[in-house]
Amino acid sequence: MAVIASLECSRCHHHVSAETPQTLCPLCAGSLYVRYDMDKLRQTVSRDDIAARAAASPASLGMWRYSSVLPDVTPVTLGEGWTPMLHSKRYPGLYLKEEGANPTGTFKARGLSLAVTMAKHYGLQHLAVPSAGNAAGALAAYAAAADIASHIFMPQDVPFANYLEGILYGADVTMVDGLISDCARMVAENIKAQREANTPAHQVWFDISTLKEPFRVEGKKTMGYELVEQLGWQYPDAVFYPTGGGVGLIGMWKAFEEMEALGWVSGKRPKMYALQASGCAPVAKAFAENKPASEFFQNAATFAAGLRVPKPYGDAIILDIVRQSGGKALAFSDEEILSSILDWAKHEGIFLSPEGAAATAAYDALLATGELKPTDKVVLFNTGAGLKYTDMTAEAMHLKRPNEKKAALPKSMPVGGIITPQ
Amino acid sequence: MAVIASLECSRCHHHVSAETPQTLCPLCAGSLYVRYDMDKLRQTVSRDDIAARAAASPASLGMWRYSSVLPDVTPVTLGEGWTPMLHSKRYPGLYLKEEGANPTGTFKARGLSLAVTMAKHYGLQHLAVPSAGNAAGALAAYAAAADIASHIFMPQDVPFANYLEGILYGADVTMVDGLISDCARMVAENIKAQREANTPAHQVWFDISTLKEPFRVEGKKTMGYELVEQLGWQYPDAVFYPTGGGVGLIGMWKAFEEMEALGWVSGKRPKMYALQASGCAPVAKAFAENKPASEFFQNAATFAAGLRVPKPYGDAIILDIVRQSGGKALAFSDEEILSSILDWAKHEGIFLSPEGAAATAAYDALLATGELKPTDKVVLFNTGAGLKYTDMTAEAMHLKRPNEKKAALPKSMPVGGIITPQ
Ligand SMILES: Cc1ncc(COP(=O)(O)O)c(C=O)c1O
Ligand SMILES: Cc1ncc(COP(=O)(O)O)c(C=O)c1O
Ligand SMILES: [Zn+2]
Ligand SMILES: [Zn+2]
Repeated sequence: MAVIASLECSRCHHHVSAETPQTLCPLCAGSLYVRYDMDKLRQTVSRDDIAARAAASPASLGMWRYSSVLPDVTPVTLGEGWTPMLHSKRYPGLYLKEEGANPTGTFKARGLSLAVTMAKHYGLQHLAVPSAGNAAGALAAYAAAADIASHIFMPQDVPFANYLEGILYGADVTMVDGLISDCARMVAENIKAQREANTPAHQVWFDISTLKEPFRVEGKKTMGYELVEQLGWQYPDAVFYPTGGGVGLIGMWKAFEEMEALGWVSGKRPKMYALQASGCAPVAKAFAENKPASEFFQNAATFAAGLRVPKPYGDAIILDIVRQSGGKALAFSDEEILSSILDWAKHEGIFLSPEGAAATAAYDALLATGELKPTDKVVLFNTGAGLKYTDMTAEAMHLKRPNEKKAALPKSMPVGGIITPQ
Repeated sequence: MAVIASLECSRCHHHVSAETPQTLCPLCAGSLYVRYDMDKLRQTVSRDDIAARAAASPASLGMWRYSSVLPDVTPVTLGEGWTPMLHSKRYPGLYLKEEGANPTGTFKARGLSLAVTMAKHYGLQHLAVPSAGNAAGALAAYAAAADIASHIFMPQDVPFANYLEGILYGADVTMVDGLISDCARMVAENIKAQREANTPAHQVWFDISTLKEPFRVEGKKTMGYELVEQLGWQYPDAVFYPTGGGVGLIGMWKAFEEMEALGWVSGKRPKMYALQASGCAPVAKAFAENKPASEFFQNAATFAAGLRVPKPYGDAIILDIVRQSGGKALAFSDEEILSSILDWAKHEGIFLSPEGAAATAAYDALLATGELKPTDKVVLFNTGAGLKYTDMTAEAMHLKRPNEKKAALPKSMPVGGIITPQ
């Protein structure tokens, strides 16, 4: 495992110590990245050790197979990471990274596993998070596993699964008549009030908002390591990523940088496509308008609940990565997202989350314009299990369970055709 | 990959060929097991090859890491198997096998992946299944992936997720006002009617009911290989398994027999505990009454939907395995199941399916009587993701999402305490 050298500001490159918990850069409020001594790592760890160590460990290590490039602490784990890389049945170059296989059904597990691991290491006792829903569920689960209190704030119209997770895992749940931005304000106000009331330090909440502490990005970077290892230590031509707060995209880019420094991969980095829903597309709008940062997206509304982030804290970093890589930030309507869900279920046997389907919709659109060929090597992230969205997806489909009236059991029936009870 | 030598009847040991699709033993209607030339396998495959081959393959192989003991055909895969083996945070000897990480969120993926793989190999075009819910969802998904038509029959009060899966994956869905036993009758009647109407052979449905064809057991046996490999090629003291049709339990026992024949494991086999819900406990009842087979369980009702199998086809095999192994078949009430769900969520960060929670409830009960010690090595199966049961679990908890009325955003709030909008 790697010893953290320092935490570096992504904006002004100021360094702070990781000896105590940190939030943002004290000089400029930029997001902090975890830094290791890469020269030393390059000499001491090799990419071949990873598969060898994984093979020697009886149980699956999940994302902790990359422990040589993760902080040297005892993991709080629920089996996250090392998710399937599925080859599309239709497009020869297309791979789908199935993040729905993670604990709590989304990729959020990776970031929260590491953030809670570090919180436990630091002895923090109260963790708070504003969330579009899935980060709240993941925090609640990992906090329960680590025996730490969690305070979660999410929009009251999140998928029912997110609410239930919070309650079941024993979190302190606040359902907010607003968006993640309102939730963020409430977390900040609570912490301010606690400080003003001279609350004992160990009772003050620690805010693990997206990009406002360094370890969620650090956990999510494992997606970047994984996709490269699962393609045989090679970059694909493009990565398609559903983008809300942008942690996944930023984490993968950090992974690419580290892997190059370690000599584990080389060549042209993939074009990064940040995909959003038309109902909440601050990054796609800023990209189209050639702006360096986003504006608050008014009246955000989409059934891709995880993409309802009207103003991501890391917007400038996301836009920079997308542009540097030669990718794009694009948005798709809820109708396009739903029809891509139906298409993938029927033709690939995969039930996508609405967020994942923003990425598949983008893939289809770029195939149609000829910007992509079916043979281009593309890794597309299904960031969550479709099963977490049964209510939202059925609502979008106007689907109701057949009524509960008695149905006669017919003696025999024709071949094929949908038969539901009368 | 292994060449199938023949299919052997579990009752009368008659052998039939696997060249064409088979259902039950033509002599006695017993379930058929896949047999390989074990002497040849013993000479040609080694357990060390498994981890080595998995390490050499960039992407995860899932359950297909055991391809050397699976039929030699091209897999229809969605990334099933090689699920996390989680160490309990509270009981030093307890491991939880998290089958919720499978595609479609349950262990049913393993059996249906192999059954659909073989169906595709045989050129079958119509597959039918009566199901408690999750097998239907899994068949629908794998059939979609293989481009084969699926006909699924399930009780109309299954978890909503099961209904939605069927519709989304494009299956021919029949919701039945009855139980899996009624569904089974309807599948059989349809097939009979198709035959009587001289339906062209390729349009007649093939019935992949539990234990009425050989390949679902064959896919599920991978759980037995996995648990032994993940414990370092050693048997645990006991295996706790939620039992409906019994395929999982029977499959694991077959795996143990094969692994011993191959010299991959030795020593005392684990005690097998078959866990049921009090509302549908045919196997536990027969066990308690010392009977060799079960009777049809009247008025089956439990929110552990997958356990609503009033008369398993393989009951005699299940009871035999449980007794041979020195295990037990036990049943727990829905209240005990629910309280175990809450306990595991709060204290381990794991959201169990009701079926899995029948196993955890059993574990608690046997710890309490002293029959088990916390240091005994136990592998307990969470056969499905809790997230697939949001509706059933919330209903059992009498939990409703907080109302959608406007909630004022308070300026500050006390530390801790559940705060919901007014
Ligand atoms: C399923 C899903 N996909 C994507 C996102 C966006 O995540 P990120 O912050 O990495 O952009 C979220 C965030 O809630 C999510 O839940
Ligand atoms: C989640 C779950 N657990 C357990 C079972 C019982 O399975 P088996 O047939 O292997 O006994 C089922 C069957 O539907 C199920 O869905
Ligand atoms: Zn700075
Ligand atoms: Zn027979």
